[in-house]
Amino acid sequence: MNGKMIYGGICAPPGFKASGVACGLKESGELDLCVLASDAECSAAGTFTSNAFRAAPVAVTIEHLEDGRLQAAVINSGNANACTGERGLADARAMAHSVAIELGIDDSQVAVASTGLIGGYLPMQKLEEGIKHAIGALHEGGAGEAARAIMTTDTYPKELSFDFGDFSIGGMAKGAGMMKPNMATMLAFLTSDAQIDPRDLSAALRIAVDASFNLVNIDGCTSTNDMVLALASGTSRAKVKAEDFAAALLQVCSPLAHMLVEDAEGSTRLIKIRIGGAFDHAEAKKLATAVAESPLVKTAFFGGDPNWGRIVQALGAAEPRLDPSKVSVKIGGLAVAERGESGMVDPASLEGIMAVKEIEIDIDLSRGDSVIELLTSDLSYEYVRINAEYHT
Amino acid sequence: MNGKMIYGGICAPPGFKASGVACGLKESGELDLCVLASDAECSAAGTFTSNAFRAAPVAVTIEHLEDGRLQAAVINSGNANACTGERGLADARAMAHSVAIELGIDDSQVAVASTGLIGGYLPMQKLEEGIKHAIGALHEGGAGEAARAIMTTDTYPKELSFDFGDFSIGGMAKGAGMMKPNMATMLAFLTSDAQIDPRDLSAALRIAVDASFNLVNIDGCTSTNDMVLALASGTSRAKVKAEDFAAALLQVCSPLAHMLVEDAEGSTRLIKIRIGGAFDHAEAKKLATAVAESPLVKTAFFGGDPNWGRIVQALGAAEPRLDPSKVSVKIGGLAVAERGESGMVDPASLEGIMAVKEIEIDIDLSRGDSVIELLTSDLSYEYVRINAEYHT
Repeated sequence: MNGKMIYGGICAPPGFKASGVACGLKESGELDLCVLASDAECSAAGTFTSNAFRAAPVAVTIEHLEDGRLQAAVINSGNANACTGERGLADARAMAHSVAIELGIDDSQVAVASTGLIGGYLPMQKLEEGIKHAIGALHEGGAGEAARAIMTTDTYPKELSFDFGDFSIGGMAKGAGMMKPNMATMLAFLTSDAQIDPRDLSAALRIAVDASFNLVNIDGCTSTNDMVLALASGTSRAKVKAEDFAAALLQVCSPLAHMLVEDAEGSTRLIKIRIGGAFDHAEAKKLATAVAESPLVKTAFFGGDPNWGRIVQALGAAEPRLDPSKVSVKIGGLAVAERGESGMVDPASLEGIMAVKEIEIDIDLSRGDSVIELLTSDLSYEYVRINAEYHT
Repeated sequence: MNGKMIYGGICAPPGFKASGVACGLKESGELDLCVLASDAECSAAGTFTSNAFRAAPVAVTIEHLEDGRLQAAVINSGNANACTGERGLADARAMAHSVAIELGIDDSQVAVASTGLIGGYLPMQKLEEGIKHAIGALHEGGAGEAARAIMTTDTYPKELSFDFGDFSIGGMAKGAGMMKPNMATMLAFLTSDAQIDPRDLSAALRIAVDASFNLVNIDGCTSTNDMVLALASGTSRAKVKAEDFAAALLQVCSPLAHMLVEDAEGSTRLIKIRIGGAFDHAEAKKLATAVAESPLVKTAFFGGDPNWGRIVQALGAAEPRLDPSKVSVKIGGLAVAERGESGMVDPASLEGIMAVKEIEIDIDLSRGDSVIELLTSDLSYEYVRINAEYHT
């Protein structure tokens, strides 16, 4: 699968319309409600947060996905509708119902997603009015507004689309904090006109998500509202096999995942952590995660300091059975630690490496064949400011 | 065991002398080398880091503790002697040897500890000269200098001592970052004139450390150099049982652990996380740790925001099988979340609670009888500054 980037985002595949409106959930008056609708009913699949406190919209969308069919989605930002009990579930169902009535489809054909503050009830009157407004505004060029309406602390909308010849895929995503996707991810929506049955779509989505969104980690915090949803309308009549569609989805998901980390709250650097020579995938992911989540590694990179001592500290704490004499670390290609001891690196060349925004850390454990690459961000004053000021 | 606080720190028990000197490891010219010596050979026990990259002095001290006997300790700050391979081990042994020669005791009677930057070799000439100087300076009132000489990013020396009638215990500790004690802790040294055999001392120390230092967590980072060492000279001739000595040690270790968190890098608040109703100790500790390590919880508290949504997010991410409808959260005694939903709390009373420096979070899981209390700190601009500027 080798697609060509095209314009149009989630509306790039023919037959998909979207809109974004401001219904008053965000005090700033910015866009906070999005509707996505397909002309035809779609095969649908999703991956969802593993957090025990999963939000009401996640529960409702999982219910509506039981038959593998969806035709629309409604997404609000500014309020997560999480930890809201029975009332929250009723509110999420009411959102789906309002969309269904307006579009003349069944409630169970509508997915619901929310993102924002945890613990408050939705102002349903504003939402009901907003949904009517959003459905009236649905159009084929609405992807940009939609991508903007699902933003929270994101500084730019994240969307893109690819043409794969017989079919196309569009995608949008949001997320800049509370982000450690686990079995699922933050919010992302993928549309396609490919013909693929729900089971194959689900398998393809799982593969693509594991290799993209599940390999980013901003602050080690798995959200209550994570959701990736894929809709395939089949209107192109291009039948696609699961493995081919997985490869095509990955081509869309990888740059979206990259954008999420690039826009991480307050970040000044994007850090690629590559672990090589691990026993297995689980060990590689555990150790990459330990480095990515270490506040000492993250603050060192914010300070422009290639502090490899903190990298090995994080590795050794996460896996006490590591053999230090086999562990080597490169930063930006320079060997800062070789077999557990300081490498012979000219400090001047390290300064040059730390001057760029994207930095690669290569860790070789020399104890197996497993390899992983995880994306993370640094920890800055700005991350603290954003999260100290983002008040309940 | 109900001791009375007395002056004297690690020199409070008769027969212990200490000193702190500046040998040039810290560019600032501050004290960076400490020697502690007992007139009599002591029963000795230690707990050590579980980090795979444990530092050379940790390895050497474990060797020297094999027979359960020690008479002196040498501790430097400003350089961790970690990730320094064979040369680091030789350097740590040379430190013990220099002390042994000067005091006329065996190398194996000397413990060695280091704290500071990871990955650099020790400047041995400076250290050898410093050790001679420090041994010449040993005196019965030297505890204050000693406690100051082991500081790194600490803003004040941490020491105290208690009289238990028949015997006394003195202690000092350091640590303000890279602190998630695991099976051991940061640096702490405990002295006593009690009579207790090494095996009982070791059992008592393990109990006291588990209930004090192992329940603090500043930034989730387990150091390569953690060490708690206890020396008991027996000169008081007061024979003490392991369980009684554990209780006495705990009375010294608890306030030292509290001081470590109070002095956490850049912290503005001390947060007590109490988990109740957990299945077992392991679950209680895992969940308390998840809350303590969440950068979103820590920044919220820095911002004076009792954001309980982030607390339940951290709990639910750590244990996906939690039943949200059974989880309640109090902040400063006010029920902010009841059975998974927002509690009825007056926002004005929450503001009052967030105005104090020490804040208690009470989490009730209602699924068992296990209870734990963990101490942590908030995440501030100052933590980022300290760790972005503390350069290699």
